Amino acid sequence: MAKERKILVAVDEGEESTYALSWCLKNVVTENSKDTLLLLYVKPPHVVYTALDGTGYLFSQDIIATMDKYRNEVAETVIEKAEKLCKDLQDVKVETRVEIGDPRDVICEVAEKMGVDMVVLGSHGYGLIKRAFLGSVSNHCAQNSKCPVLIVKRPKNSAATSTS
Amino acid sequence: MAKERKILVAVDEGEESTYALSWCLKNVVTENSKDTLLLLYVKPPHVVYTALDGTGYLFSQDIIATMDKYRNEVAETVIEKAEKLCKDLQDVKVETRVEIGDPRDVICEVAEKMGVDMVVLGSHGYGLIKRAFLGSVSNHCAQNSKCPVLIVKRPKNSAATSTS
Repeated sequence: MAKERKILVAVDEGEESTYALSWCLKNVVTENSKDTLLLLYVKPPHVVYTALDGTGYLFSQDIIATMDKYRNEVAETVIEKAEKLCKDLQDVKVETRVEIGDPRDVICEVAEKMGVDMVVLGSHGYGLIKRAFLGSVSNHCAQNSKCPVLIVKRPKNSAATSTS
Repeated sequence: MAKERKILVAVDEGEESTYALSWCLKNVVTENSKDTLLLLYVKPPHVVYTALDGTGYLFSQDIIATMDKYRNEVAETVIEKAEKLCKDLQDVKVETRVEIGDPRDVICEVAEKMGVDMVVLGSHGYGLIKRAFLGSVSNHCAQNSKCPVLIVKRPKNSAATSTS
């Protein structure tokens, strides 16, 4: 039965994403499988704020640099946390990837380009990006991804498992 | 690792549902697991056709009886076909269930009532019911189900695997 599969897990800074990854590790990836996990974090692009009169609103270089630094730190933290969760399954290969853009498109694009067998993501999210993009990432991926999509919802009464 | 899980697979008369079940058997349910598969088919309720003048349109008893017979035959065929697909995995317990209603609500209700660990369904469908209900069943279930939902899309270039 064991065969090589590539499973893309979209991770973000939210607890639901952590739960989705944990659930996937427990229920889909098994210890003796030859699965490769591809942990993908999508950073939000620069958001251009438009003033009401349409003239646009420009940030100074300082502010942009600070925002960039923060975005990179968040990306690192998310990926590190996700990798830590995967360490218990020693036979599973883990790859990580950080991309920039609208997570709805990026997740589907990476899934197709890498020929993954399955996409796993939380039903809510996408943390930081949630503020920048309207519309549900999971809905979009379920409709547009060419491979099976597993949407994991964190039970309301569950503590944030495996986050420590 | 092996633990008892209950997995609800929503089946209908479409090929995508067959593909979703096959995919689930190959990728989620493993031979030596203690999983229970709950195959659920949701029959469409009687549809009341309303004439344009709002007076409604009543079918004769004959027509209603014929439609009922047809619906029951479809239900039987779908369930039989799904059970047949599951036969190769001998250790997996299979339960079947036929309900009547809007599949979007019924799938979520049954999932919750039975405390299933996961819902599996095709991304399109729902065959017969598709005509009676607007809106995507998979979208609705992904948003409203309290457990993880796996939406399986049949690749466009795939032959209808395991349908024979």
